[in-house]
Amino acid sequence: MYAARVIGTVVCTTKDEKLSGRKMQVVQPVNLLNLEDEGKPAVAIDTVGAGESEIVLVVGGSSARQTHLTNNTPVDAVIMAIVDYIDIEGNKIYDKHKWKAGV
Amino acid sequence: MYAARVIGTVVCTTKDEKLSGRKMQVVQPVNLLNLEDEGKPAVAIDTVGAGESEIVLVVGGSSARQTHLTNNTPVDAVIMAIVDYIDIEGNKIYDKHKWKAGV
Amino acid sequence: MYAARVIGTVVCTTKDEKLSGRKMQVVQPVNLLNLEDEGKPAVAIDTVGAGESEIVLVVGGSSARQTHLTNNTPVDAVIMAIVDYIDIEGNKIYDKHKWKAGV
Amino acid sequence: MYAARVIGTVVCTTKDEKLSGRKMQVVQPVNLLNLEDEGKPAVAIDTVGAGESEIVLVVGGSSARQTHLTNNTPVDAVIMAIVDYIDIEGNKIYDKHKWKAGV
Amino acid sequence: MYAARVIGTVVCTTKDEKLSGRKMQVVQPVNLLNLEDEGKPAVAIDTVGAGESEIVLVVGGSSARQTHLTNNTPVDAVIMAIVDYIDIEGNKIYDKHKWKAGV
Repeated sequence: MYAARVIGTVVCTTKDEKLSGRKMQVVQPVNLLNLEDEGKPAVAIDTVGAGESEIVLVVGGSSARQTHLTNNTPVDAVIMAIVDYIDIEGNKIYDKHKWKAGV
Repeated sequence: MYAARVIGTVVCTTKDEKLSGRKMQVVQPVNLLNLEDEGKPAVAIDTVGAGESEIVLVVGGSSARQTHLTNNTPVDAVIMAIVDYIDIEGNKIYDKHKWKAGV
Repeated sequence: MYAARVIGTVVCTTKDEKLSGRKMQVVQPVNLLNLEDEGKPAVAIDTVGAGESEIVLVVGGSSARQTHLTNNTPVDAVIMAIVDYIDIEGNKIYDKHKWKAGV
Repeated sequence: MYAARVIGTVVCTTKDEKLSGRKMQVVQPVNLLNLEDEGKPAVAIDTVGAGESEIVLVVGGSSARQTHLTNNTPVDAVIMAIVDYIDIEGNKIYDKHKWKAGV
Repeated sequence: MYAARVIGTVVCTTKDEKLSGRKMQVVQPVNLLNLEDEGKPAVAIDTVGAGESEIVLVVGGSSARQTHLTNNTPVDAVIMAIVDYIDIEGNKIYDKHKWKAGV
């Protein structure tokens, strides 16, 4: 899984019927050591109600179909967790609650 | 999933029988932030009637077999949505209808 | 799927029994816009009788097992179509029949 | 599979219910020839009780769901082994027990 | 599938129970045109009794589970063939038997 920041949304009227009602978000992958942008943005289905600017985990490939919202659906990237904390070698390098407060 | 622009077609007479009647299109991946070309073109099966120059979403891997047109078929890239809007950090950076009108 | 040129063959006596009788070919990926070599050669199972120097389509991953010759077989790349024509933005950039005639 | 060093943990309160109780670790891929860091860190589910700074093996894609802790779970990277020794061309380039003792 | 040279082994005492008795080898990918090293080494399960320095084929992803030794096992790379010959555009660029004899 990779960490990413939710940066936008995609709206599609014409789509596979199994995608009906699924929220498509644009995710910008971030480096797990410093949360800086790294790599190309992708489109992922949100299954946990993630909001814009939140740091989330994205699962790819066939495993993206292993949530109750994406079972048997033509999707290859799904947001399946919202990150609260990241600890690297004993240092809390990300805390969702402080981060949101601007600390 | 990644965003791409439909730029062409591929015709194959000799092919796996399950591909019979499937439309193969050439898709050029685009950056989700500015819709500029990025990366190598690929061949994808169209399941939504996408036209040339439209911005679409492409799903890859085993999930490409999760549409009614590609079930149990040897394909690893499928167009499963036509993009109407892309919003990035509050700005509508793509609107299919205005885009087509040359705005 | 990606386009590739068939450039050679691989022969293996000692192999998984399910590979018995399968033809292994070396494929050189080509750019879909100009058919120039691009990227590293790979080994793919031929399911359509492709000949050396032909432009073919290669499917990867689990979908490579969706042909009658590769079902339940340990392969991750299969040639499943021989390309006749490629049209890019209205121009026929490849025609198998003219190409073979040296035009 | 690739070798990696466990460098941290990720905590998520809001997540897919099947991830409940699963330990998410941050893994830094290492080069198998010299164990130096190489490539981007990722998030993997630990199924073998790996500790921080240990060298482990990570399996990706759908095969990450083939452990008793990750069956039918939306995960695409799992730690499924802790490395004791690595031998390259006859030389033991890594020995977990000596390494831990500072040799 | 890609060609690789077997360059070492990995030993893990603590591992997923389904990996018990499976031989883990370090494989160095090689270019199919000249057999020179290319890309990063990986860990693959040997299913054909490959010896060190032999040129083998490696299959990745879910297809790595399609051998009798790796069925339902958390592995994403398997050695499933030992290469005897590679012909590129009519030239035998590799012959296992001559190669071993130092020719």
